[in-house]
Amino acid sequence: MYVIMVYDVNVSRVTKVLKVGRKYLNWVQNSVLEGELTKSKMEKLKSELRRVINVKEDSVIFYVLRSTKYMTWEYLGKEKGREELII
Amino acid sequence: MYVIMVYDVNVSRVTKVLKVGRKYLNWVQNSVLEGELTKSKMEKLKSELRRVINVKEDSVIFYVLRSTKYMTWEYLGKEKGREELII
Repeated sequence: MYVIMVYDVNVSRVTKVLKVGRKYLNWVQNSVLEGELTKSKMEKLKSELRRVINVKEDSVIFYVLRSTKYMTWEYLGKEKGREELII
Repeated sequence: MYVIMVYDVNVSRVTKVLKVGRKYLNWVQNSVLEGELTKSKMEKLKSELRRVINVKEDSVIFYVLRSTKYMTWEYLGKEKGREELII
């Protein structure tokens, strides 16, 4: 399945959340990661995140798609994630 | 169509970008908005954003789905956008 993860967490936990996210997904932009995941990897990702976030303060949203067949991407401005891939 | 908009812009332009985004979409989390849009509204949104962002520095990504039929949402922690709807 294809997963877009966006997070809005306290600044003290941003680095930890990003580090966990990057283990499973590709960074595309500040607080946004995306990529193809198996169901079990998705469960692992969520379980690792639960250990680092504060559920009363932080928020993580996953948009989960069976495939990218029904989705298109549109960009305005810089494509930061792609730049990172090139550098 | 259903649109998820995520932005990563210079702090000096955050308020402007958010203001434009809110005209068309619902705020769900810091730097993330989503909602149903017609094609023409989507064009208007992009054209308004082009006027406020700096394309050399800022980045806006739109995930565009024909419908939400093939997507599910999963949340960890607070659902900030819903809270805002209630308050």
